[in-house]
Amino acid sequence: MSRRGFDLAATLDLLERTPRVLDGLLRSTGEDWHAVDEGPQTWSARDVVGHLVYGEETDWIPRARILLEHGEQRTFEPFDRFAQLERFAGWSMERLLERFGELRRANLEIVRVWQLTDAELGQRGRHPEFGSVTLQQLLATWAAHDLNHLAQIARVMAKRHTGAVGPWRAYLSILDPS
Amino acid sequence: MSRRGFDLAATLDLLERTPRVLDGLLRSTGEDWHAVDEGPQTWSARDVVGHLVYGEETDWIPRARILLEHGEQRTFEPFDRFAQLERFAGWSMERLLERFGELRRANLEIVRVWQLTDAELGQRGRHPEFGSVTLQQLLATWAAHDLNHLAQIARVMAKRHTGAVGPWRAYLSILDPS
Repeated sequence: MSRRGFDLAATLDLLERTPRVLDGLLRSTGEDWHAVDEGPQTWSARDVVGHLVYGEETDWIPRARILLEHGEQRTFEPFDRFAQLERFAGWSMERLLERFGELRRANLEIVRVWQLTDAELGQRGRHPEFGSVTLQQLLATWAAHDLNHLAQIARVMAKRHTGAVGPWRAYLSILDPS
Repeated sequence: MSRRGFDLAATLDLLERTPRVLDGLLRSTGEDWHAVDEGPQTWSARDVVGHLVYGEETDWIPRARILLEHGEQRTFEPFDRFAQLERFAGWSMERLLERFGELRRANLEIVRVWQLTDAELGQRGRHPEFGSVTLQQLLATWAAHDLNHLAQIARVMAKRHTGAVGPWRAYLSILDPS
């Protein structure tokens, strides 16, 4: 397994930053910034934050536990990528951000208490779709997934100005239909 | 001119958030997070922050001033999108972030002091490439440009984990070559 580019401390540091970054970007913004989506079947910033909260509740740490306790003998629960749309219906952005911050803090504390060794990072579990995966891949994905959705939120927010930027649209590839 | 989606106060609010967001994401990170680029001729997170600083120094407010003072009679200076690579060579990420925060605060203060009216927002200037543009389009672009580069930074940072995520790469379109 290649460890290139992976560093546990740097990964946990990044994961710790995300709630602060999203707070800075979204807390106390109006609906115009966070309830706008990119069209039918797309997510608003609010939906994305709900998805991140749901991941903290049901995905990353529960899967890491299954992996550490059962190895490849027990397949992870499939992650429902749309559950947040019902689960957090009616929640304000503030409530979502707060919940995300609390859960992320608690989850990172769990990982730190584990004091993972290289051997444990290389331990394998079973993904319902991909099959054999390592704990290190799961943790690397957790951080990349944060960054993926941060980029998505920035893109969705930028779309608010698609018309307003006028001819500058030619320079702003972020405004292209996705 | 369509005002759809544009709100001056919300635009200034967004612009005010960006230094905080970038601080949260990048301050005190290691080179592994902020010096990595996406290959030849691409920018690292550090290069992007340098580009944002350079924009504060030479682009948005200087252009707005030309527009307000000379209308379409005087063409904006062309913006050098690569100048920051020399201008800020050797600057630490911390220094760039601090400079960005200071300049952004000062620039937003200038805009607030102007107390722009709808008539002024509709006033026109001359872009060296696009020709006639309005002040409102310039301000809308300033905010969309922030979000564009925030998404870019998230993408470049995520690439650090391209190999480390293993089979999850299939779910993370952010890791595709750009």
